[in-house]
Amino acid sequence: MTVQPDRLRGGHFITLEGGEGAGKSTQVKRLAAALSARGIDVVQTREPGGTPGAEDIRSLLVTGDPARWDAMTETLLHYAARRAHVEKTVKPALARGAWVISDRFADSTMAYQGYAGSVGRETVAALHRLVLGDFAPDLTLVLDLPVETGLARAKTRMTGAAQAEDRYERMGLAFHESLRAAFHEIARREPERCRLIDAGGNPDQVAAALWQAVAARFNLPA
Amino acid sequence: MTVQPDRLRGGHFITLEGGEGAGKSTQVKRLAAALSARGIDVVQTREPGGTPGAEDIRSLLVTGDPARWDAMTETLLHYAARRAHVEKTVKPALARGAWVISDRFADSTMAYQGYAGSVGRETVAALHRLVLGDFAPDLTLVLDLPVETGLARAKTRMTGAAQAEDRYERMGLAFHESLRAAFHEIARREPERCRLIDAGGNPDQVAAALWQAVAARFNLPA
Repeated sequence: MTVQPDRLRGGHFITLEGGEGAGKSTQVKRLAAALSARGIDVVQTREPGGTPGAEDIRSLLVTGDPARWDAMTETLLHYAARRAHVEKTVKPALARGAWVISDRFADSTMAYQGYAGSVGRETVAALHRLVLGDFAPDLTLVLDLPVETGLARAKTRMTGAAQAEDRYERMGLAFHESLRAAFHEIARREPERCRLIDAGGNPDQVAAALWQAVAARFNLPA
Repeated sequence: MTVQPDRLRGGHFITLEGGEGAGKSTQVKRLAAALSARGIDVVQTREPGGTPGAEDIRSLLVTGDPARWDAMTETLLHYAARRAHVEKTVKPALARGAWVISDRFADSTMAYQGYAGSVGRETVAALHRLVLGDFAPDLTLVLDLPVETGLARAKTRMTGAAQAEDRYERMGLAFHESLRAAFHEIARREPERCRLIDAGGNPDQVAAALWQAVAARFNLPA
């Protein structure tokens, strides 16, 4: 029987987190391209969404009045979308040995609804255990940026379909400040899994910093 | 200071439960009409749904392929809709002293996903506590009917928009048998809250049996 160490090891799950306008979707694309260029099978995905059912749930979450959902309802919708995403996209990809790069994952719910929102950290953590057990990313890259810079960037990038997805951007400066503090705290509490990345530079600089973190974590040649 | 006993007591929350084709929506209307005729302020509602956001979630749940959601995702969507329904419709109505009559509530999730589905009773119960604490109906009327009779009735009632909402009907006989057993078990475990009602008669007979149960529970004149 031939042992295939690469297949047996399976894929890796990398998540990008951070507030609005930190450049996550750009950087997910660049990181996926950099891994593909090294011959790695990469699945690029996002939350809420990443599978057809979860994308339908996304449209309930990211459009409309900021007061459309109370914080607990919102948290449940995020976990419904996340469960579908994990079961139908993330786990199957990891099982076949692919690397999965997701624009947002569970830390976003912890930051937005657990720390900055009214649901509370304990409730979000209990819900996570109920829905996903101890399933977690291998590496989480937290893109960090002053709130004003992020919101200004988020405003200018908005064109076409993305323009309607502004429910979170409209939530006010104090909310976004708590959000940034929450992501700092999450990264501080889980230093093994998380890397805080300065997202203040231009896209090339941020991509280089991300690549350095990924290469170091998975022993890839620079 | 004047004491107003009726306002202080607040409203009552009554739920109708049971499998497909048991006549729940007809009987909710009749019960609401009977209470209104006695001068009671009644809010008639349903799950999943009962508030605009929850109705949007309903459309994700009741249409499409039976395999569209895994059982846990489905349970989370039901609890997201339920949380919105309770916060925006049920609790405000009870607070102003109205009676709320709902076509389905939490027992349906316990029966469909907890007992008959793969999520398990403990997980559904833990989710309920996390989302709604100890909030529960004052009275639950479980409409009971042989599975074949119910599915045959469900098939003939279907016209227009309701015809698309057949995701659960298409789940097979064994599933519906476990469902019926689950509702029996729920009623047996909570005899204070639940009444098992024979739904095999004609609508007038079933309405009379329901009224008897409601009048007895709340000391209303027959």
